Amino acid sequence: MTKSKHILVLNGPNINMLGTREPDIYGHVTMADIVAGCAERCAKAGMSMDSFHSNCEGELITTIQQASGTYDWIVINAAGLTHTSVALRDALALFTGDVIEVHISNIHARESFRHVSLISAIAKGVVAGFGAQSYYMAINFIADTLTES
Amino acid sequence: MTKSKHILVLNGPNINMLGTREPDIYGHVTMADIVAGCAERCAKAGMSMDSFHSNCEGELITTIQQASGTYDWIVINAAGLTHTSVALRDALALFTGDVIEVHISNIHARESFRHVSLISAIAKGVVAGFGAQSYYMAINFIADTLTES
Amino acid sequence: MTKSKHILVLNGPNINMLGTREPDIYGHVTMADIVAGCAERCAKAGMSMDSFHSNCEGELITTIQQASGTYDWIVINAAGLTHTSVALRDALALFTGDVIEVHISNIHARESFRHVSLISAIAKGVVAGFGAQSYYMAINFIADTLTES
Amino acid sequence: MTKSKHILVLNGPNINMLGTREPDIYGHVTMADIVAGCAERCAKAGMSMDSFHSNCEGELITTIQQASGTYDWIVINAAGLTHTSVALRDALALFTGDVIEVHISNIHARESFRHVSLISAIAKGVVAGFGAQSYYMAINFIADTLTES
Amino acid sequence: MTKSKHILVLNGPNINMLGTREPDIYGHVTMADIVAGCAERCAKAGMSMDSFHSNCEGELITTIQQASGTYDWIVINAAGLTHTSVALRDALALFTGDVIEVHISNIHARESFRHVSLISAIAKGVVAGFGAQSYYMAINFIADTLTES
Amino acid sequence: MTKSKHILVLNGPNINMLGTREPDIYGHVTMADIVAGCAERCAKAGMSMDSFHSNCEGELITTIQQASGTYDWIVINAAGLTHTSVALRDALALFTGDVIEVHISNIHARESFRHVSLISAIAKGVVAGFGAQSYYMAINFIADTLTES
Amino acid sequence: MTKSKHILVLNGPNINMLGTREPDIYGHVTMADIVAGCAERCAKAGMSMDSFHSNCEGELITTIQQASGTYDWIVINAAGLTHTSVALRDALALFTGDVIEVHISNIHARESFRHVSLISAIAKGVVAGFGAQSYYMAINFIADTLTES
Amino acid sequence: MTKSKHILVLNGPNINMLGTREPDIYGHVTMADIVAGCAERCAKAGMSMDSFHSNCEGELITTIQQASGTYDWIVINAAGLTHTSVALRDALALFTGDVIEVHISNIHARESFRHVSLISAIAKGVVAGFGAQSYYMAINFIADTLTES
Amino acid sequence: MTKSKHILVLNGPNINMLGTREPDIYGHVTMADIVAGCAERCAKAGMSMDSFHSNCEGELITTIQQASGTYDWIVINAAGLTHTSVALRDALALFTGDVIEVHISNIHARESFRHVSLISAIAKGVVAGFGAQSYYMAINFIADTLTES
Amino acid sequence: MTKSKHILVLNGPNINMLGTREPDIYGHVTMADIVAGCAERCAKAGMSMDSFHSNCEGELITTIQQASGTYDWIVINAAGLTHTSVALRDALALFTGDVIEVHISNIHARESFRHVSLISAIAKGVVAGFGAQSYYMAINFIADTLTES
Amino acid sequence: MTKSKHILVLNGPNINMLGTREPDIYGHVTMADIVAGCAERCAKAGMSMDSFHSNCEGELITTIQQASGTYDWIVINAAGLTHTSVALRDALALFTGDVIEVHISNIHARESFRHVSLISAIAKGVVAGFGAQSYYMAINFIADTLTES
Amino acid sequence: MTKSKHILVLNGPNINMLGTREPDIYGHVTMADIVAGCAERCAKAGMSMDSFHSNCEGELITTIQQASGTYDWIVINAAGLTHTSVALRDALALFTGDVIEVHISNIHARESFRHVSLISAIAKGVVAGFGAQSYYMAINFIADTLTES
Repeated sequence: MTKSKHILVLNGPNINMLGTREPDIYGHVTMADIVAGCAERCAKAGMSMDSFHSNCEGELITTIQQASGTYDWIVINAAGLTHTSVALRDALALFTGDVIEVHISNIHARESFRHVSLISAIAKGVVAGFGAQSYYMAINFIADTLTES
Repeated sequence: MTKSKHILVLNGPNINMLGTREPDIYGHVTMADIVAGCAERCAKAGMSMDSFHSNCEGELITTIQQASGTYDWIVINAAGLTHTSVALRDALALFTGDVIEVHISNIHARESFRHVSLISAIAKGVVAGFGAQSYYMAINFIADTLTES
Repeated sequence: MTKSKHILVLNGPNINMLGTREPDIYGHVTMADIVAGCAERCAKAGMSMDSFHSNCEGELITTIQQASGTYDWIVINAAGLTHTSVALRDALALFTGDVIEVHISNIHARESFRHVSLISAIAKGVVAGFGAQSYYMAINFIADTLTES
Repeated sequence: MTKSKHILVLNGPNINMLGTREPDIYGHVTMADIVAGCAERCAKAGMSMDSFHSNCEGELITTIQQASGTYDWIVINAAGLTHTSVALRDALALFTGDVIEVHISNIHARESFRHVSLISAIAKGVVAGFGAQSYYMAINFIADTLTES
Repeated sequence: MTKSKHILVLNGPNINMLGTREPDIYGHVTMADIVAGCAERCAKAGMSMDSFHSNCEGELITTIQQASGTYDWIVINAAGLTHTSVALRDALALFTGDVIEVHISNIHARESFRHVSLISAIAKGVVAGFGAQSYYMAINFIADTLTES
Repeated sequence: MTKSKHILVLNGPNINMLGTREPDIYGHVTMADIVAGCAERCAKAGMSMDSFHSNCEGELITTIQQASGTYDWIVINAAGLTHTSVALRDALALFTGDVIEVHISNIHARESFRHVSLISAIAKGVVAGFGAQSYYMAINFIADTLTES
Repeated sequence: MTKSKHILVLNGPNINMLGTREPDIYGHVTMADIVAGCAERCAKAGMSMDSFHSNCEGELITTIQQASGTYDWIVINAAGLTHTSVALRDALALFTGDVIEVHISNIHARESFRHVSLISAIAKGVVAGFGAQSYYMAINFIADTLTES
Repeated sequence: MTKSKHILVLNGPNINMLGTREPDIYGHVTMADIVAGCAERCAKAGMSMDSFHSNCEGELITTIQQASGTYDWIVINAAGLTHTSVALRDALALFTGDVIEVHISNIHARESFRHVSLISAIAKGVVAGFGAQSYYMAINFIADTLTES
Repeated sequence: MTKSKHILVLNGPNINMLGTREPDIYGHVTMADIVAGCAERCAKAGMSMDSFHSNCEGELITTIQQASGTYDWIVINAAGLTHTSVALRDALALFTGDVIEVHISNIHARESFRHVSLISAIAKGVVAGFGAQSYYMAINFIADTLTES
Repeated sequence: MTKSKHILVLNGPNINMLGTREPDIYGHVTMADIVAGCAERCAKAGMSMDSFHSNCEGELITTIQQASGTYDWIVINAAGLTHTSVALRDALALFTGDVIEVHISNIHARESFRHVSLISAIAKGVVAGFGAQSYYMAINFIADTLTES
Repeated sequence: MTKSKHILVLNGPNINMLGTREPDIYGHVTMADIVAGCAERCAKAGMSMDSFHSNCEGELITTIQQASGTYDWIVINAAGLTHTSVALRDALALFTGDVIEVHISNIHARESFRHVSLISAIAKGVVAGFGAQSYYMAINFIADTLTES
Repeated sequence: MTKSKHILVLNGPNINMLGTREPDIYGHVTMADIVAGCAERCAKAGMSMDSFHSNCEGELITTIQQASGTYDWIVINAAGLTHTSVALRDALALFTGDVIEVHISNIHARESFRHVSLISAIAKGVVAGFGAQSYYMAINFIADTLTES
């Protein structure tokens, strides 16, 4: 009944620059907008939410390590680390809850080195290409799961 | 104002077997359940919806060709054809509306030949791994887009 | 005791041309000859048998989908689809009975793109290179299994 | 003297959409225009011609199988199947006449998965990149061959 | 009439361990059981048979070299050498009779380094995945060939 | 109206040996025959034509550099340089007119190192496999373009 | 007129060790020497300059994010991160000024994993192999550009 | 005589989670247990020891940079960074003492991206798969070396 | 209590040449020295030990096959066979005890064809690069395991 | 003191076309401008300079062979030959002075076949992407080296 | 009887530098020495010989084209062109006599891009690694063949 | 003066079958003929010679190990082991004399798996494609070396 209540939204390198550059790829929405949008949706669904951003792989890993027991779900946009960080994958694999991988742009329609994700294999699922909505779709999925449980 | 109203949900080979086999990977929900779930969400959002299933690549292509002008969005689970059909990709690329690629299972966590999608590069976005919810997340995204427009 | 009684022999694209072209590779035996040879052997072993041929991937998939519950074994020569069809593999993986992959020619001694089979990994076993006998060896194997059970 | 008289023009998936989409790549000419252009040139050269289009690999294969004995040449634009269909290649290899592979666009200047053709190795020759003229160049080649024989 | 009478059954490294370990993959049948089963089927078909086992590539090669003139067929399960021994392939290619490659397990469903066989290209055919029956299917094929000649 | 009038036919290494060796692959027609055949067709279509042959990559490049402004089209059979010369590609890319790539043999049906062309991506189109006719088909295409303009 | 005035010199992991180890590859010059050499050249050319070093990918990214608007050019020696960090590339791609990639050693003459740079594709240019001079050449290039503007 | 006395034990990302998750792969021993075990063995052998853990690549690099002159040996379990960090490799290569690479699990028996180590080539040796004992075996090796010198 | 008592030390091709050639890579210790060193350490720990060397893959396999039931551990330096012998891997996989893979040199710092071990995936662990100590570290690990049990 | 005085500037295929085509990639500066710019800078630094251009690999090689003893440095823009000519590399490797590789465009940001340079490994260093300045940066580097010596 | 009398010794790029540079790899013998050594051996065997050197691929090709009919054997050291020139291979394939490929150094023991020869497949045989003797061994082979004929 | 006097000719798997099979590739000469031919040439040159053949990799290795000190040169045709045996390479690398690799057929003109030799890199040189003469050319080279010393 109290399952799936606490959510951690994680943003990796450069997501904090959203809305300031390359609007063709990423649009005008800022990371703060996205976090607020996630929080609003969580609140509506009766779920608590925290968020964390870092440009540093190590800080993201430490945050994930501390998330076990506190959070039920991690929604993560690992950005450039998606394709290069085995250490991040290892941290997520150790997390006791479930992981959803999100991407603002459609990584499969960009450079080939963005087509491989080291995280996907240990995630519940992947949402990519819907801008800020990618996050909201993940949040809503968790809310729906909560409703069903 | 009337933008994004008509949706076509396409299901490729073997999706009609959902709910009858391999529940570990695909769960107990049937294709009919999913189509009904999509229709219900579309109705709520004031959008019309049709669906089509075929095990035949050629029939899917023909259906996509006829969808231009009639439908604004295609939500497609191309199943096994995802990884092998250039012809399906070509048909989707010619579609005048937008395309969302969905997968019931997390294809990135399965055999390596399922990691490459020929469709992703011409899709708006990809949702994979959330069971029937993958479809609903796509439908809800379209509904939200409608609301915003 | 009634186990392994019903067999479905499936032939993929171009197998219907057997005996009319390229006798160096395929010999003079026709698909009808092979089906008759299979039927004769099945009858001798007290097993029922049906066969189906299509040049269309989709029709083969539909036939496989309907085979569960009715047939205990599928003996399939997927021909050119062997090397390219993930959808066919998926259909065979969902089949409730067992699958035997057969090939008239020794695919491993031909062009390199024929060396990889997408079907082998989900088959019970593979018989390749013995002409029409490849089918009969599969049928006889099933008959022997029947005898032993 | 009666050699090389009957020609079959085959069009694969999505060629029927020509002239309706992506004029940058494919131009404004329709498949009907091309077939008419081929027919006109065949008539001038005293050759008979039929054409067939399908989005379905299986129907193309069946048509090719029936072409032996009736037609002397197949001019084929296999479109997306060019790069993926071993079964189509096998059917063409069994054809008793000669095969010319044509493409409207220059496939070598597009995505890398379009650079490999499974058909080229069993074709007499390849013409790519000249729009509708690719077909006409093939027809004219056959006509010239006829003249010389 | 007296063609195809003498058969040599060759077993490579570790086949002698059959029935003692890893029953999930190899079953409980021993190499002696298989050789006896082959001999029984040969006798029934009026064919003579010898068998040889070695863990040593060199001894297998020497045996194959001496088989020409004496034996009409070699049925070989080269086990781990299947994937690594060019020298064994060369010896089999020099054999004056025909070669059938057999495998107890379905090598195509195991580790990727077992998917490539250096022997297949010079064999008449391949039988894999049917346990001890893989051998018997090969023997029966030879017997049937004998009957037909 | 005066567009597409001047054509340069370029022949790369060993084309001057045509008709003297390997008739199975290249036939008995000589380079002089081909150039004459091209000239005849150009004359008929009211187009001027020059030709140049060299075994030396550098001389071909220099000739191409001087062709801009003088010629509207280059028809080039780069022979062995097709697969290895980035410098030749660069020269052709700088040419102010259009380029057609021709090959006497079907390069896709020969050794794998002949399957990749560095030139195709910057050419208007490719004609391969029709013997001397490959050149004539290119010339005729230009003539037809002229007629249409 | 005031264009290209402010320069940020960035040094990645281990550059701070320069002059203390492996003089065969890197020489005896220290990072402080290089920064001083850059500052001296900037001063001469009337340009301001700052520098930053970190062993931490995240700190480099944060510094780059803050550089937009403040600096016109980034001269970066990303050291080992050159070959592995998509996140660093993403940060540099978002920078509003131009980027010059420098390397002390000739990375193309070392281990093969140093031959691929993820940064080069988004840089203005690359200077590698000239020791400390690699930096100075970049600074001088900017100064010359300034002069010309 | 006083050679090889000071040892630095370095632990990379997620090693601090040892003993809390995935006991099948990593067992129940904690990082603190391992460090204590190392210290105990060092003390017995008359060697001093320090340890450091970080989830951050940059902090590990900085620590390694400062270790030269102070420590004679580094025993490092770089965890996920083993397979991705050129910067870490560079830092270790600059270290004036010797490096031993250790892994708790047998990385060669896990996912293929764990089979390549960027560190091994600059290490004295590698110990993998023995749980906490991997560290102790490295410590004991150093102790033995000390004894012998 | 009597667990892990009997150890078999196996040495593959050319290990018998140790101490006579290439001291830069292998040092001056002989195989006899190593075996004696192992025996001494086993004796100290109350464990029995035998050793076997062969240059022949087949003899090593036969020895491993006979080791089950008699020995609890195999410590193997398969030398050049490490990288090429599937048959040796298969034999070790059938062994009822545990396997430790050892190498005198650091194979990861040598030619690239030595970086892949076919044995590692079925071994308990790997020790490489410590000269004769690689063996002793393996022996000591077993001894420690014994102590703990 | 008289070291590094004589410089040879070499330009490969198509560099002579600079300033006449593709200004987006190469700008409006001509090869003559660049050579003059180099000469001016050499004169200022008290160094002599010659230049040579050829579209022919062989002439470049001959020129390089004759440069030993006469010139102290070669500054080479090998253009398209950079990626394909082992012979050019061999000639440069035999040169008794030092080699600097320059490129006008950033070859790493263009087609993938331009990412590999056969020359880099034998060059002192590489400068790419700065237009004509790439040459001047090389000249200035040599001048600075001269000053320091 | 008069078979195999006339020999053409061809030397490719940089062979003319032999004896002047890199004696570690190539020794002190000059190209003139080698040609004289070949001539002396030919004279002794009653065979005539000519030689030709060029740094230019095109000149070598032209020379080979003119060799048919005049020479019975070509002994060629194509140097760097060995690994890159399809055009040279094509010229040699058209030669009416036989071709022997020689190399002064052991190309298989050098950089990996020297391990592939485009010429070997159309040569009678290959001699590499014996310095000037590589040529003499080829000459002597031809002389012995002459004797035997 | 007494240098290079003792030669060991080694023949690997299946060379003993020479002259009995596949004359198209290997000719009619037997291994005994070749050994005799070698012995005759050695005798003429005042050199002693022994030969050894084995189908077993291990026996060849043991023979090579014992050759150091006794023989000055090994002339080896490792046949199929050429492409697969790291252990054989290791043994030859430990040999105190020099090694010449010979092949009867031109391995570069056969299947691609014969194009890679593990032995070449540690050999003095390679002779391939000249039938029995490949051996004699090696012997004569040694004799010539002897003469020169």
